[in-house]
Amino acid sequence: MDLNSDLGEGFGAWKMGDDEAMLDIVTSANVACGFHAGDPGVMRRVCERAAERGVTIGAHVGYRDLAGFGRRALDIAPEDLADDVLYQIGALDAFARAAGSRVRYVKAHGALYNTAAVDAEQAAALVEGVRRYGSDLALLCPPDSAMLHAAVAAGLTGHAEAFADRAYTPSGRLVSRKEPGAVLHDAAAVASRAVTMATTGEVLDASGGKLTMRADSLCVHGDTPGAVELARRIRESLEAAGVTLAPFA
Amino acid sequence: MDLNSDLGEGFGAWKMGDDEAMLDIVTSANVACGFHAGDPGVMRRVCERAAERGVTIGAHVGYRDLAGFGRRALDIAPEDLADDVLYQIGALDAFARAAGSRVRYVKAHGALYNTAAVDAEQAAALVEGVRRYGSDLALLCPPDSAMLHAAVAAGLTGHAEAFADRAYTPSGRLVSRKEPGAVLHDAAAVASRAVTMATTGEVLDASGGKLTMRADSLCVHGDTPGAVELARRIRESLEAAGVTLAPFA
Amino acid sequence: MDLNSDLGEGFGAWKMGDDEAMLDIVTSANVACGFHAGDPGVMRRVCERAAERGVTIGAHVGYRDLAGFGRRALDIAPEDLADDVLYQIGALDAFARAAGSRVRYVKAHGALYNTAAVDAEQAAALVEGVRRYGSDLALLCPPDSAMLHAAVAAGLTGHAEAFADRAYTPSGRLVSRKEPGAVLHDAAAVASRAVTMATTGEVLDASGGKLTMRADSLCVHGDTPGAVELARRIRESLEAAGVTLAPFA
Amino acid sequence: MDLNSDLGEGFGAWKMGDDEAMLDIVTSANVACGFHAGDPGVMRRVCERAAERGVTIGAHVGYRDLAGFGRRALDIAPEDLADDVLYQIGALDAFARAAGSRVRYVKAHGALYNTAAVDAEQAAALVEGVRRYGSDLALLCPPDSAMLHAAVAAGLTGHAEAFADRAYTPSGRLVSRKEPGAVLHDAAAVASRAVTMATTGEVLDASGGKLTMRADSLCVHGDTPGAVELARRIRESLEAAGVTLAPFA
Repeated sequence: MDLNSDLGEGFGAWKMGDDEAMLDIVTSANVACGFHAGDPGVMRRVCERAAERGVTIGAHVGYRDLAGFGRRALDIAPEDLADDVLYQIGALDAFARAAGSRVRYVKAHGALYNTAAVDAEQAAALVEGVRRYGSDLALLCPPDSAMLHAAVAAGLTGHAEAFADRAYTPSGRLVSRKEPGAVLHDAAAVASRAVTMATTGEVLDASGGKLTMRADSLCVHGDTPGAVELARRIRESLEAAGVTLAPFA
Repeated sequence: MDLNSDLGEGFGAWKMGDDEAMLDIVTSANVACGFHAGDPGVMRRVCERAAERGVTIGAHVGYRDLAGFGRRALDIAPEDLADDVLYQIGALDAFARAAGSRVRYVKAHGALYNTAAVDAEQAAALVEGVRRYGSDLALLCPPDSAMLHAAVAAGLTGHAEAFADRAYTPSGRLVSRKEPGAVLHDAAAVASRAVTMATTGEVLDASGGKLTMRADSLCVHGDTPGAVELARRIRESLEAAGVTLAPFA
Repeated sequence: MDLNSDLGEGFGAWKMGDDEAMLDIVTSANVACGFHAGDPGVMRRVCERAAERGVTIGAHVGYRDLAGFGRRALDIAPEDLADDVLYQIGALDAFARAAGSRVRYVKAHGALYNTAAVDAEQAAALVEGVRRYGSDLALLCPPDSAMLHAAVAAGLTGHAEAFADRAYTPSGRLVSRKEPGAVLHDAAAVASRAVTMATTGEVLDASGGKLTMRADSLCVHGDTPGAVELARRIRESLEAAGVTLAPFA
Repeated sequence: MDLNSDLGEGFGAWKMGDDEAMLDIVTSANVACGFHAGDPGVMRRVCERAAERGVTIGAHVGYRDLAGFGRRALDIAPEDLADDVLYQIGALDAFARAAGSRVRYVKAHGALYNTAAVDAEQAAALVEGVRRYGSDLALLCPPDSAMLHAAVAAGLTGHAEAFADRAYTPSGRLVSRKEPGAVLHDAAAVASRAVTMATTGEVLDASGGKLTMRADSLCVHGDTPGAVELARRIRESLEAAGVTLAPFA
């Protein structure tokens, strides 16, 4: 099982999360590329630390929207989206390679992730940007999403990720953050869900039913002190359960 | 002899110059990378057209200053400058490679070009950003500049460029644009200077003395209709004089 | 009748349209405020020229999206939109007042205009930003739009604008630019439509039926040389028909 | 005596300092205006809270450089600087007025502050931008600086500010942060200096000599938890010494 997290999301004088601490926990780092967050200095430092620790580097591409942190849907033309994605991957790979590593996968950020999960045209544009950089790049996706299907259709490898701290509907979708109970806050319960997902490929949905959830990676967050602790606990619980942690890509 | 020009300097809805026309004239294209000008769509189109025509692609890196078009000196820390340069090269190379070519050289833009021509620390930072991307990248520089010396000191290949439409001082510096006569407007005179530079390695300075001017590339401008015409005339005059035009890198 | 046009849409080294020429034609100038286009220098110059000529100044507010020129829908939270609108009005009014005039109305740009024409929530947020600046500001809107209704509901004065060079559906909506015949290119026909609109309050729709079109302002474009000519012809035709041209606000 | 602090320096998802806590301590708030930091939402919230508490609002204007947080000198043309300053003041004043207050003074930020302290041309351009907004605006300046002289020359009121936690040279300049001892970290000593400055108009310079330091305002920082504590202690010490705290403007 892989653990991934969004890192390098500071910008200039502004910090976001504890990249150093998270790089000791995860096996894959989704590194922001400058469009929704991340400046060249942050990108270099995260790539250097990731390379030192053997953490796999992924390009965390987003809409060009620093003011909105890439969380606002942007009705961008597919061709422009493909170009924006290619730009971001190339920029990050320069730092990954200078650090002795390389970008091995792509994970969309925020509103782009949400849109490309369900919108076939945006998904295809995202995948096209990735494919132009290299057909050996993987794409980290929601399970059974438009994004995953587009990746496969383009001959790329798509990998599914799951969230141990989020409730799922019986159909396998994330419960909206606007609903009560969408985010699980009990650390023991979250760690237990992570272990169940990793060892059985199943998880209880919000109505208590069994849901098949075959994921190659679990996403953990690191942008609050409590989040780092939770991520660490998830990792320790997985290791205690005999789950081997290794990059998916 | 090589002919280079700054291209891809539009941004979004805004146009700058006639990239199409210039790509039929030059042998090397300095392509803006998004910091002073250039968006991913422009970068892709210029790289595709350049690759089709066999025009060599260079990264035209600048300060992060869209509002000032990179023409305002920015007192950036050397480490940050190296990171900014590396980011821009990586981003452009993604488009160059997707078009079947690659970035083969770097030319600084505007205020960065002027500063790194004379400031050893900024020159070293610029070169460090280039070197981290690849020691096979060349750097296009003013003759006998801090930039050229820094390139050589870092083991990179530096190439000197000259301007056929600019007056030079007896010591080989460009006459400031604030001085009368700094820019030559007579097309025949400019074309003639270009031929003299290319065939003899000499040029008359502003005081009428002979100046040695060994350049591997002549810079031509394309941001006005008249400039395109002048560039075309320079090319035709060089060809008529038997000068072989070929990329320096 | 009022003639309005989008002006001040350059940015830094990039130009857009011929502001000088248009300021001799229009009675109201929608001046970009820096979010989709326009920098402080452009804003100052347009405000100064408008004030000299007695052209009324309006704030042409848009989404924060220079790369997309404000033409891409952005799913911004209503509260954030109101703040962005207020910011832009305040910035422009500083230049309008320094030039001896003031901002008298607001017209949304591009995707914000299109969204707030039909989306009641975005329309209300736009209006709220305007109202906070001053309840004496007018809003220039499509006829019978969500935007116009929101303005009235908030106690602001809404004014309807029409386009002489665009085809309308029988229900009074603009024919989409994706449809053939959406934009009229024959100058005589466009000028004639403008006169009919101004003198009768009616216009032929795309199916040939009579459409009531009571507008307080006609929008003319100035971003191409041909557009300037067309705008001038519209003005001359209106004057020849005895229509008094005067700012609506 | 007035206490001022730089506030509203977050941007989008990024936070900077504890604006809420500082607004309970200071009498004047230098609010970032979007060029080096600050987005419209942050500006609104800080203006609303400041107005509620009777804290005077100042425009904290900076270079357009989000990536560098306005801390990098930018060689901007004086006319462009004046325009950039005017833009920022107008934008902030929209929020101040919507909150029932208004912008009463201007304080330059970071590299602009440092440059305009010693460079007469940049100081004059800064002052010109302020003056165009209103000749009743005050300018908060280093004592005996080019900025202060330019303000007075333009008919504006300049006020001098001092730093209780910074060492001064015998000539009244701040000791460079690159020198040891430039910043005082002992809270008791800093609070004591603040009281001495406020009650005697004198302070010990770095060599132990007495320095006249007549300031209308003391600048306190709030961007770290320790800084908030120190600011609170300075305020309490001043009050305990019978110093009346009130806005300078």
